[in-house]
Amino acid sequence: MSESATETDQDLIAAVTAQARAARNAATVIARAGGRARQAALLAIADAIDASTDDLVACNRQDVEAARARDLAPALVDRLELTPARIASMAEGVRQVAQLDDPIGEISALREQPSGLRIGQMRVPLGVIGIIYESRPNVTADAAALCLKAGNATLLRGGSEAHHSNQAIGALVRAGLETAGLPSDAVQLIETTDRAAVGALLAQDELVDVIIPRGGKGLIERVARDTRIPVLKHLDGVCHVYVDADADLEMAERVAFDAKTYRYGICGAMETLLLHKSIAADLLHTLGARFAEHGVALRGCARSCALVPGMVAATDADWAEEFLSAVLAVRVVDDINEAIEHIGQWGSQHTDAIVSNNHKKIEQFVREVDSASVMVNAPTCFADGFEYGLGAEIGISTGKLHARGPVGVVGLTTQKYVVYGDGQTRGA
Amino acid sequence: MSESATETDQDLIAAVTAQARAARNAATVIARAGGRARQAALLAIADAIDASTDDLVACNRQDVEAARARDLAPALVDRLELTPARIASMAEGVRQVAQLDDPIGEISALREQPSGLRIGQMRVPLGVIGIIYESRPNVTADAAALCLKAGNATLLRGGSEAHHSNQAIGALVRAGLETAGLPSDAVQLIETTDRAAVGALLAQDELVDVIIPRGGKGLIERVARDTRIPVLKHLDGVCHVYVDADADLEMAERVAFDAKTYRYGICGAMETLLLHKSIAADLLHTLGARFAEHGVALRGCARSCALVPGMVAATDADWAEEFLSAVLAVRVVDDINEAIEHIGQWGSQHTDAIVSNNHKKIEQFVREVDSASVMVNAPTCFADGFEYGLGAEIGISTGKLHARGPVGVVGLTTQKYVVYGDGQTRGA
Repeated sequence: MSESATETDQDLIAAVTAQARAARNAATVIARAGGRARQAALLAIADAIDASTDDLVACNRQDVEAARARDLAPALVDRLELTPARIASMAEGVRQVAQLDDPIGEISALREQPSGLRIGQMRVPLGVIGIIYESRPNVTADAAALCLKAGNATLLRGGSEAHHSNQAIGALVRAGLETAGLPSDAVQLIETTDRAAVGALLAQDELVDVIIPRGGKGLIERVARDTRIPVLKHLDGVCHVYVDADADLEMAERVAFDAKTYRYGICGAMETLLLHKSIAADLLHTLGARFAEHGVALRGCARSCALVPGMVAATDADWAEEFLSAVLAVRVVDDINEAIEHIGQWGSQHTDAIVSNNHKKIEQFVREVDSASVMVNAPTCFADGFEYGLGAEIGISTGKLHARGPVGVVGLTTQKYVVYGDGQTRGA
Repeated sequence: MSESATETDQDLIAAVTAQARAARNAATVIARAGGRARQAALLAIADAIDASTDDLVACNRQDVEAARARDLAPALVDRLELTPARIASMAEGVRQVAQLDDPIGEISALREQPSGLRIGQMRVPLGVIGIIYESRPNVTADAAALCLKAGNATLLRGGSEAHHSNQAIGALVRAGLETAGLPSDAVQLIETTDRAAVGALLAQDELVDVIIPRGGKGLIERVARDTRIPVLKHLDGVCHVYVDADADLEMAERVAFDAKTYRYGICGAMETLLLHKSIAADLLHTLGARFAEHGVALRGCARSCALVPGMVAATDADWAEEFLSAVLAVRVVDDINEAIEHIGQWGSQHTDAIVSNNHKKIEQFVREVDSASVMVNAPTCFADGFEYGLGAEIGISTGKLHARGPVGVVGLTTQKYVVYGDGQTRGA
């Protein structure tokens, strides 16, 4: 029994390794193919998706029915479902990626050095990107398109709930590549639903250049723990808005309300509101009423609780919590230093904002808060690749190396030095 | 016995963790201190080194005598030795780093988005950098200076052979920081010579942002294997020069000779020479004689051996070998595609060069060779941060994420997004 399990594992590792090797070979072709060929492939993929709406709906129905039979939560079943409108939107997303500027081949900072060599940096693809994601099947097209635009091959591993949908979308992506004369192995799905396949993918550090997990914290922690491949990720979005003594209170109310209520479930949603003691009472009076009306439950520090009768007292665990729901922690601070210290201690270095009209305070906050995005007079929910002008987003990274913040096409590339000489030597 | 070993290990881990935590706190102060304070500290460090030449020589003598007593190879003893001239050069190196442009705080690509938000990227320090290095004691000052210039704190772990020298240099660096009013914990040496301290440092993924190993391949492999902290590194420099059919043969001879003989022991030294079949006989005739005269032993493919009587036949192992000595592998290829394929199969993605006057061939080589540096009509031995205009170099990275190629001050920084608004909201 255990021997046969081992054999199965080895078969599975061999199969994933073969896919990774095919991806590596395809990556070389994709990188050399040129931006027009990659764009043509993306447009062919979008057309193939549009032309296959009925088939996709039928494949998706298998996943949806299986999910209902397993009594999956309605919200999860909804995330899984592909309607004709959602399929059209998926194709349109691929077309938008096709129209983005091609980042590959750009040479920057080319300068002549004292030796006479002209040295610059050329933007090039990363190579092979592994994407591990949970149930939304549109990620199959979105992620493959963005990686392909940047000249990379992808190995995709979606959630087993969306197996039939992902396979169907993957087949259309591969057909689009072939239509454009590019190798279909540039986008491969890992076919088995065996959970050990994730481990087999994470072990491909010789062949895969970066892993991007998209899903819940459990998935991301597991991926980061189990691989030597660099991972682009964020675990938490414990985002703060600090309202300074010199804030425009009407603006502060608007920004803080939007930061919490635009969408509770996004990683850029505000989880803790920090208030300078001098404006706390006024702001909590108006904002507290709006939050109450909107069904947002506040958990406050002792000073906040003293200002708002009936407010639930916050514990230390609340400062660290990413609620992703209609719950907000509130703390009154003595000054901006205490706010910055709170963010450093409890935050997740994702996105933090100040509301102020005081130039010195704004500069201090921008310099001293060590987060992937630092915002001034804007709600944290703007942390998003589209809003940042990246055209699309593969995810948000809180890591300090390589891409930090929302990651778009450029974050899926790297640079190499190019050195042009005419026979210079270093020795005599 | 084993229990006491465990206790010792735990003491050691606790001590290294305490140092890492102190480094993290100091990093915050260093990052906020401003470029002028960091520059003042660097100049104070250089002055302290100059003023302590006699003391440094005396401390160093303990290491040198211990090394001689242990019959260390003369070349290693030489690397260990600090003379007054070498100490002056070390101080001068710190002064040069002090004079480099301060990269911190620069905001780039600030643009207004459709929302009205102005979004750009600010260059900021990485945080805490761990440096693990072998016996040359000047690395203690060089590495600390470069990291400090970029606004980072460092944890240094040098080779035990240089223990007294490193401690003495480290004390001067810390004194220089204090002179400038900065926290001395921004540069800390891990004091114990216990080898387990390296493991304790590699386990600090909560507190250390990046590890840079400097030393032999064994050290670098061990570091990469044993940590979850991102590592900036290269393992091998199996560098190629490809001489194309359309090369100027006089230039090709000069470039290839320099690439091999400038210094055998540097990672940018050419290890394999690839020759287009149409120029192989002519070039091997002249170049072979110069290499022979210089004591460089050639190991050739069958076609090379047929051209040069008595040439030793190369094995596959030779194509993969970083000789770092007066040995050179030589292979004749049918065309540029075969050369690029050879480099892809056997190279280490460090630095590879083409010698040619054919524009199309040059463009193909530059695009298709996937190495950290790709050179045209220049010897691979130019792969160096000073030659690239970086002012100084902490090492060369062949990793694709973050810094790639020679890594200078900018490679020791990261960016964060800065977002300036005036009360915009995403919701209604």
